[in-house]
Amino acid sequence: IQSKLPGVSTTIFSVMSKLAAEHNAINLSQGFPDYACDPKLVELVNKAMQDGFNQYAPMPGSTFLKETIAGKVEKLYNIKYNPETEITVTAGGTQAIFTALAAIINAGDEVIIFEPAYDSYAPTIKLLGGLVKTYELAPPSYTIDWDMVKKLFTAKTRMIILNTPQNPTGSILSSDDMKSLIKLITGTDILILSDEVYEHLIYDEQKHQSVMLYPELKQRSFIVASFGKLLHATGWKLGYCLAPEKLTKEFRKVHQFNVFSVNSPMQQAIADYIKEPKNYIEIGSFFQQKRDYFRGLLAESRFKLLPCNGSYFQCASYSNISDEKDTDFSIRLIKEFGVATIPVSAFYQKATDHKIIRFCFAKENATLALAAEKLKNI
Amino acid sequence: IQSKLPGVSTTIFSVMSKLAAEHNAINLSQGFPDYACDPKLVELVNKAMQDGFNQYAPMPGSTFLKETIAGKVEKLYNIKYNPETEITVTAGGTQAIFTALAAIINAGDEVIIFEPAYDSYAPTIKLLGGLVKTYELAPPSYTIDWDMVKKLFTAKTRMIILNTPQNPTGSILSSDDMKSLIKLITGTDILILSDEVYEHLIYDEQKHQSVMLYPELKQRSFIVASFGKLLHATGWKLGYCLAPEKLTKEFRKVHQFNVFSVNSPMQQAIADYIKEPKNYIEIGSFFQQKRDYFRGLLAESRFKLLPCNGSYFQCASYSNISDEKDTDFSIRLIKEFGVATIPVSAFYQKATDHKIIRFCFAKENATLALAAEKLKNI
Ligand SMILES: CSCCC(=O)C(=O)O
Ligand SMILES: CSCCC(=O)C(=O)O
Repeated sequence: IQSKLPGVSTTIFSVMSKLAAEHNAINLSQGFPDYACDPKLVELVNKAMQDGFNQYAPMPGSTFLKETIAGKVEKLYNIKYNPETEITVTAGGTQAIFTALAAIINAGDEVIIFEPAYDSYAPTIKLLGGLVKTYELAPPSYTIDWDMVKKLFTAKTRMIILNTPQNPTGSILSSDDMKSLIKLITGTDILILSDEVYEHLIYDEQKHQSVMLYPELKQRSFIVASFGKLLHATGWKLGYCLAPEKLTKEFRKVHQFNVFSVNSPMQQAIADYIKEPKNYIEIGSFFQQKRDYFRGLLAESRFKLLPCNGSYFQCASYSNISDEKDTDFSIRLIKEFGVATIPVSAFYQKATDHKIIRFCFAKENATLALAAEKLKNI
Repeated sequence: IQSKLPGVSTTIFSVMSKLAAEHNAINLSQGFPDYACDPKLVELVNKAMQDGFNQYAPMPGSTFLKETIAGKVEKLYNIKYNPETEITVTAGGTQAIFTALAAIINAGDEVIIFEPAYDSYAPTIKLLGGLVKTYELAPPSYTIDWDMVKKLFTAKTRMIILNTPQNPTGSILSSDDMKSLIKLITGTDILILSDEVYEHLIYDEQKHQSVMLYPELKQRSFIVASFGKLLHATGWKLGYCLAPEKLTKEFRKVHQFNVFSVNSPMQQAIADYIKEPKNYIEIGSFFQQKRDYFRGLLAESRFKLLPCNGSYFQCASYSNISDEKDTDFSIRLIKEFGVATIPVSAFYQKATDHKIIRFCFAKENATLALAAEKLKNI
């Protein structure tokens, strides 16, 4: 059998989480909390099941949830999306990304991505016959030079994937970035896929630059959001996609044949839960405290911390500790020091190695403290 | 924006369920129960959430669930699948079908399907750049002449999609069908996608002809199964794919970038539940009683019932009642008689109209009785 994805193996997140379990290491690799989600939320799922929400939800999502999402978006960003025609509930952020790409990318279409990047983008584009045009960002700031982006444009450029706050670097796009981007794409029909799953995790009074805030971008953008990240329940696999009607129409054509519809009792429960803004509005400061706590702990280690403006990931350089490849170093970290991380080269198709690893700090303070104790021994 | 699926609109299931709700009609259209699933199962989901199964499940599925599936399959069919390398848990049967096709079909590949067919097959193949080669089956028996299938073979034939018991017709494949199929494909490298989501719903002491029972088929088959159908909980969106290691490897490459992983607490609960065969083993006789009850009721109407050997769908001809198109007739059934069904032409790409509609009998007996009262007025 000839593989359609010959170079692809199991995602780094599965590999590292498995290794962590095998070696009984503290798992700061894959992005999920080690503490419980709100028991109220669990209670609401139980109630939804008791109330009989156990059969197919409507294909684009439960009406109640779509309306609640529209309310939340309007409250946060003062931007309106029509729940009927512009919001689709998905089986997680990753599935929304896949579906948006599948709805748009034809063989030969080019998609621009910024690396380091979440590892689904490039193989999904290739699976669909698209070509990946890669702009490699460099530490420590991972900033974008938009004149360089322009050089990647061709007649075949169909889409640009943005990700702010960015996984794995924790960097964020600024309003200047957005303005540069608008200048570049005005007059083209290039679309945007904006992965904003960490939209709430942004620190130091900075403002999340959602593409929806810019009409010239909004009208050509799929925006992907995640309830797993918002509600500390990554295993529930619920997210959504916002897009103007003409894009949502194409998105749903694929969605209905990809998963058809999404977990019904959990949609009901999440709608009940997030209709109260108090249930999510503190998540930014919650994670900012974790970031500060973890950075404080690691300040006593030999790791050099990179900036972290958003997301629940902290990157660190180990170049003054070792010149091993980051994959080797992170495996040794697991085996010898009992801490699992992600080597950032895994987020580059060319495995570009800047000697940087990524820690996930969505963990109990006690877990972070225990990990830091071990990391100080290096 | 140029559509990749220009001819596609919202699936018939959404359209009819929506119309049913708007007209307050009895909904015998989309395939889902109107009664509660087992409260024990709900309790197990609640327990799994309380026990903390709220973060990412392993990418190919929870180990516990995969092992339980292997045990169930071995018990039912006396066939072994390796949970580690041959079983993948998916976000429902539809998602398993999509992922298998996405993993295999390249531009220009041909896929043979038998119509009437579940409406995701053809558009998914086309979305991937494949070509649909269609064999139209005819009522009342919908049997396959395998010599005719052979005529569809070309050098480009990559896959055949089977569906037994078949949605929408309730017909099933026999061991003779399987033997004919084996003869046809021996010596080719044609793969099989076998949609067996109604495997347990087979009547009158007949035996489900899973492709796994035939080694020459098993080695080249993706088999799709559904917990939604098995557990009367279609809204939970859980299913799985069985395939030999070399096919599972390709399946998972796409799965990990499509949904990454699947609802964690529900996987745990389902594993706990189905490890007791008594929790599902009676489902065949349960639905056989419903079939017999519903057929008995409709015998007093002017509809002509087709055979129903499997699935929870009953097809009926209305040709002696009206010569309207089946789409028009089924809309009139909703508006004038208060019963929603599915026009079977929706399962043919060419909308071939044999004046047949599909009833779903996965409903309370009281619902079926009420619907039959209305249908007798026609
Ligand atoms: C499937 S892992 C999703 C993203 C994430 O959590 C990570 O980058 O670790
Ligand atoms: C998404 S509907 C799935 C199949 C089914 O239940 C039907 O055919 O009605």
